[in-house]
Amino acid sequence: MNRGKFITLEGGEGSGKSTQARVLAERLAQEHGITVLVTREPGGTPFAERLREAILDPATGSHSALAEALVFFAARADHLDNRILPALAKGEWVVCDRFSDSTRVYQGHAGAVDPRVLDALDLIVGKAARPDLTLVIDVPAEVGLARAALRRGTAGQPSSAAATAGAGQRKVEGLMADRFEGRDLGYHKRLREGFLAIAAAEPERCAVIDGTKTPEQVARLVWQAVSERLVRGART
Amino acid sequence: MNRGKFITLEGGEGSGKSTQARVLAERLAQEHGITVLVTREPGGTPFAERLREAILDPATGSHSALAEALVFFAARADHLDNRILPALAKGEWVVCDRFSDSTRVYQGHAGAVDPRVLDALDLIVGKAARPDLTLVIDVPAEVGLARAALRRGTAGQPSSAAATAGAGQRKVEGLMADRFEGRDLGYHKRLREGFLAIAAAEPERCAVIDGTKTPEQVARLVWQAVSERLVRGART
Repeated sequence: MNRGKFITLEGGEGSGKSTQARVLAERLAQEHGITVLVTREPGGTPFAERLREAILDPATGSHSALAEALVFFAARADHLDNRILPALAKGEWVVCDRFSDSTRVYQGHAGAVDPRVLDALDLIVGKAARPDLTLVIDVPAEVGLARAALRRGTAGQPSSAAATAGAGQRKVEGLMADRFEGRDLGYHKRLREGFLAIAAAEPERCAVIDGTKTPEQVARLVWQAVSERLVRGART
Repeated sequence: MNRGKFITLEGGEGSGKSTQARVLAERLAQEHGITVLVTREPGGTPFAERLREAILDPATGSHSALAEALVFFAARADHLDNRILPALAKGEWVVCDRFSDSTRVYQGHAGAVDPRVLDALDLIVGKAARPDLTLVIDVPAEVGLARAALRRGTAGQPSSAAATAGAGQRKVEGLMADRFEGRDLGYHKRLREGFLAIAAAEPERCAVIDGTKTPEQVARLVWQAVSERLVRGART
């Protein structure tokens, strides 16, 4: 049996990655009969979700970008072992909302961890699962932040209000907002630069998708990239 | 102000490390007026304690030695940043129950993570805090396991019984038992070999202490090593 394809979606806050991951997986399944695992990072396994909570919990105080990067790679190792690699081995396709590039950008480009350290960790942890295709959903930082605030129903409010307003997933979104979305615009601009720099350095793996269009238009661009690069290739 | 001294205690389960750490700290304070931070790994900060819980929680399933090692190094990075390095910088001494050598032994020697990977992580995370002295409290695996079982009040019972019997610290001890103490004798023999191999390779940093004697006798051996290697040196 052929190994499945591994697709990652990357980008800043409010880029629409999660929506596009679901839409892409449905289309692969419905139009091509492909079994698809849709998953996300940080998370994807009980251990990785616990690590995600530890990072997001305000009670754990501030931590260095290096400590965060190590936790994200630990979560990734567990996610690869227990979900991603077994699915790919069975011939399933995996669509993952964030992966190594997010660590490179958040903790490296915008977080001051030496890129060589992140390269070393990526080699140690991710060597068996290089994405076949990475979709960088690109939106200006201002657009992404405004969308993320709308999604949380907190446009114009400080993000900490969202952390206590809801429960469950809403609460986690609020915590994520506190940790990462709540940082200043300059930080979010560095995130965008980081993702575009990766895409420019690795054009064979990465496709940049204009995320400012409507969700339907973005989905068409995503499908075009996947179709050209993977679906046709998988048939020949 | 001179940087304080950094002392780590290492060894298998039931070696008496935690008791000796407390006794050593008291003696340094009382007889030499040294301010001492007594701490432990994994743990020592709110973030590191959360990571410790994530590893020990049976609900997080089995995880690879590599994922564990990454989490332990993440916890260590936070512990160094927020407690150990600030204390040393103020001239305080730090006595730490377990440190990098435990990761090398549990996840490396006995856990199959490539030692070069652990060396790389140690260089990345621990470069600013190499212990001035590491006390390897050595007991045969059979002795340490029998003591650990007695301490939990579960001699002759499966370790999982302890996990649900108590609360708080007792519960954590029980969970630690499930994750690590509950493994077979051969595993614990490999742990002992690993600690002795490190001590043999780095005799200037490490002192092997015979942990089979009474706590009072072990404390005398510990004090002798600390006194010869650090206290006299600190005065000259």
